[in-house]
Amino acid sequence: MSKSVFYHAGCSVCVSAEQDILNLMDSSTVEVVNIGEDRNRIAEAENAGLKSVPALVTPNGNVLHINYGASMADVKG
Amino acid sequence: MSKSVFYHAGCSVCVSAEQDILNLMDSSTVEVVNIGEDRNRIAEAENAGLKSVPALVTPNGNVLHINYGASMADVKG
Repeated sequence: MSKSVFYHAGCSVCVSAEQDILNLMDSSTVEVVNIGEDRNRIAEAENAGLKSVPALVTPNGNVLHINYGASMADVKG
Repeated sequence: MSKSVFYHAGCSVCVSAEQDILNLMDSSTVEVVNIGEDRNRIAEAENAGLKSVPALVTPNGNVLHINYGASMADVKG
């Protein structure tokens, strides 16, 4: 099965949502990416359709924006 | 294990998110509530902290607002 990707940027809203998602899902099926640090993956996140973080991209390509930590503009700085 | 509760109101954003959540999680651990129809559960949803639907309330009481379908004011009409 293809993995989901959880994108975040280290903010408190992001960390809280990450803990919830990893508790609720099989954590082995989720890749966690901090685009505040792994900045070369920002373009990938934008191409996936992210408008804000935290967000989960499902294996079928849907984007679930979860709560609201920061906009992609904020992340790009 | 206590269940999560997925609140929605039948909107297209809600239905899409519901399908994703039920695919990603063990669906036996999620109760799905349509507060557009089960209007006597709107107060419960508000007490849980919902600001909009769709949203997932985790077993530990955290609220994950997922994308944005409608505000609680819209649901209450």
